Amino acid sequence: MTTDPPSNGLRSNPAVTISSIAEETGVSVPTVSKVLNGRSDVAADTRAKIEAALERHQYRRRNRGPATVGPALIDLAFHELDSAWSIQIIRGVEVAAAEAEMSVVLSELGGRHRPEQKWLDAVLARRPMGVILVLSTLGKAQRHQLESRSIPFVVLDTDGEPPDGVPTVGSNNWNGGLSATRHLLGLGHERIAVISGPPDVLCSRARVDGFRSALEEAGLTVEPSFIRYGDFYVEGGYQHGKELLTRPDRPTAIFAGSDMQALGVLRAARELGLDVPRDLSVVGYDNLPVSGWVGPALTTVNQPLQAMAVTATNLLIDLARGNSPQLQQVDLATELIVRESTAPPMTSDPS
Amino acid sequence: MTTDPPSNGLRSNPAVTISSIAEETGVSVPTVSKVLNGRSDVAADTRAKIEAALERHQYRRRNRGPATVGPALIDLAFHELDSAWSIQIIRGVEVAAAEAEMSVVLSELGGRHRPEQKWLDAVLARRPMGVILVLSTLGKAQRHQLESRSIPFVVLDTDGEPPDGVPTVGSNNWNGGLSATRHLLGLGHERIAVISGPPDVLCSRARVDGFRSALEEAGLTVEPSFIRYGDFYVEGGYQHGKELLTRPDRPTAIFAGSDMQALGVLRAARELGLDVPRDLSVVGYDNLPVSGWVGPALTTVNQPLQAMAVTATNLLIDLARGNSPQLQQVDLATELIVRESTAPPMTSDPS
Repeated sequence: MTTDPPSNGLRSNPAVTISSIAEETGVSVPTVSKVLNGRSDVAADTRAKIEAALERHQYRRRNRGPATVGPALIDLAFHELDSAWSIQIIRGVEVAAAEAEMSVVLSELGGRHRPEQKWLDAVLARRPMGVILVLSTLGKAQRHQLESRSIPFVVLDTDGEPPDGVPTVGSNNWNGGLSATRHLLGLGHERIAVISGPPDVLCSRARVDGFRSALEEAGLTVEPSFIRYGDFYVEGGYQHGKELLTRPDRPTAIFAGSDMQALGVLRAARELGLDVPRDLSVVGYDNLPVSGWVGPALTTVNQPLQAMAVTATNLLIDLARGNSPQLQQVDLATELIVRESTAPPMTSDPS
Repeated sequence: MTTDPPSNGLRSNPAVTISSIAEETGVSVPTVSKVLNGRSDVAADTRAKIEAALERHQYRRRNRGPATVGPALIDLAFHELDSAWSIQIIRGVEVAAAEAEMSVVLSELGGRHRPEQKWLDAVLARRPMGVILVLSTLGKAQRHQLESRSIPFVVLDTDGEPPDGVPTVGSNNWNGGLSATRHLLGLGHERIAVISGPPDVLCSRARVDGFRSALEEAGLTVEPSFIRYGDFYVEGGYQHGKELLTRPDRPTAIFAGSDMQALGVLRAARELGLDVPRDLSVVGYDNLPVSGWVGPALTTVNQPLQAMAVTATNLLIDLARGNSPQLQQVDLATELIVRESTAPPMTSDPS
């Protein structure tokens, strides 16, 4: 038995062993082992009883049992696989994993921000080196299941406030919102709307708060109906864009929460005969490759998705090796990229 | 020992066993096993000798050895992970794999159309249920390595003429080229250029041949300098677009080999002050989501990427179960999607 320190900085109780768990729950040692190894041939109530005891005693597996067959695996799970956004993250993880001679198992959680137990059972059974969750988090019991098997995990671009001690890698969304809005203010815009992602996703709220902050520092009041929340996709940008741009007091600039939403706003503007950037300035978010290809090329906030993915993977590998990296909550810097979709507003009032 | 039939329809020689291979090559039975299981602790020359004997005797593993830890794995390898094109395929494989309660290991081959041996060694070691190769193929020796371990493989969207007996899933590229070109001819265009992918990739050539065929059936001669080959990305479309559109006899329509290339052509046209579709019609290929979002929305050829990926995965699962599916070379139908980027040519000659 090796004595790797427990992952995620949680302390284990050295007196707790598979035998003591078996004794306490009145089952055999192999049955506890089966549960730890994600085997399905254990009755559900026995399994629940064992999981509860593992959690109660903060059990941490000390050796990882027989190594997985072949090179170590990293489990990478997306709440949703959609758009070029995901591919940037996948590429970053692939690069860092290949560097470490590891392979990547990719899963989609079917749009859920919390994985189903079925997915976690498969992970426990294949015993990856670690798990990266994108825009999704584990419930408390699931977190403990990984911890008790000494499988570290990192949350990439957290959707909500991560619980204490959960390693996360993200980017400075508040700053992104601030710099996008300051850019529009600097061009002379005063009627600026924002279309962000879902309000229950942390990065959406941070971007809107950066937006508010920039307006406030410019001494402008925030028009509540100019703050919109939707999903991050084209359709959301299109719908909100249509609504905002058909108002008599339509905004002269829209800050979109993603490049996809910005494409939706561009489409809404085209349909209404508004020229971008003459009649409307648009700022996107993410700096996906497509943002530079469309016409007009999008002014956008660069979110360093590949670098975030590389950072998350390296942090995970570090944790799996039993190290306790000093920095376990990392936010990379965002940066405004000015292209063709923003310009000073027309001086005449369109209302 | 079970007696699964060999994969890929190749016949094995029942007289060849691990023992007979060991005896012939003068090594121990465990050493042959190690090589079959992708273990790295065998000297390179011993390994080469054993692989050669396995190939010479058409050895086929009869049982797959101990099952992989956890749910069965499907190895999915892309020559390159780029653009929204890859994500469509990944989603299709994920859906079909989840349906079969399997997990997907994703690799990028670093732009190579033939995987490095290092990648294949990792695959042999983890013993997946099967392998899907996207726009890439195995060398003969690599093919045999998978066959001797009874790991089936399917080539998705083959880059070249696949060797006999290799299962492939693609789409009807010739037909796609034909229907795109017929559409432009039907609008009245006569000076039509094509920008295709690399000439050594089968689908590029098939699309160009469809293009030629349509022109010939319309009684038009093909202008050789109007046929361009590049990569499938935006930059390629932009460069060829710029060259074609600054000629005195510039084409009135361009058929691009991918939606990405078509975006590059749109950008070249914008920079030259040409309006699409008034001054230039553009047809894309693939029908990626982005093709419907840009302005003007692209007329394009739908390549059913997700359906192709689902078909390839199901074919692979079928082969792994020891069945011999009747249809092992499947081409799904392509379909022209008419949107905003095509219109009749202007009657005045721009030259």
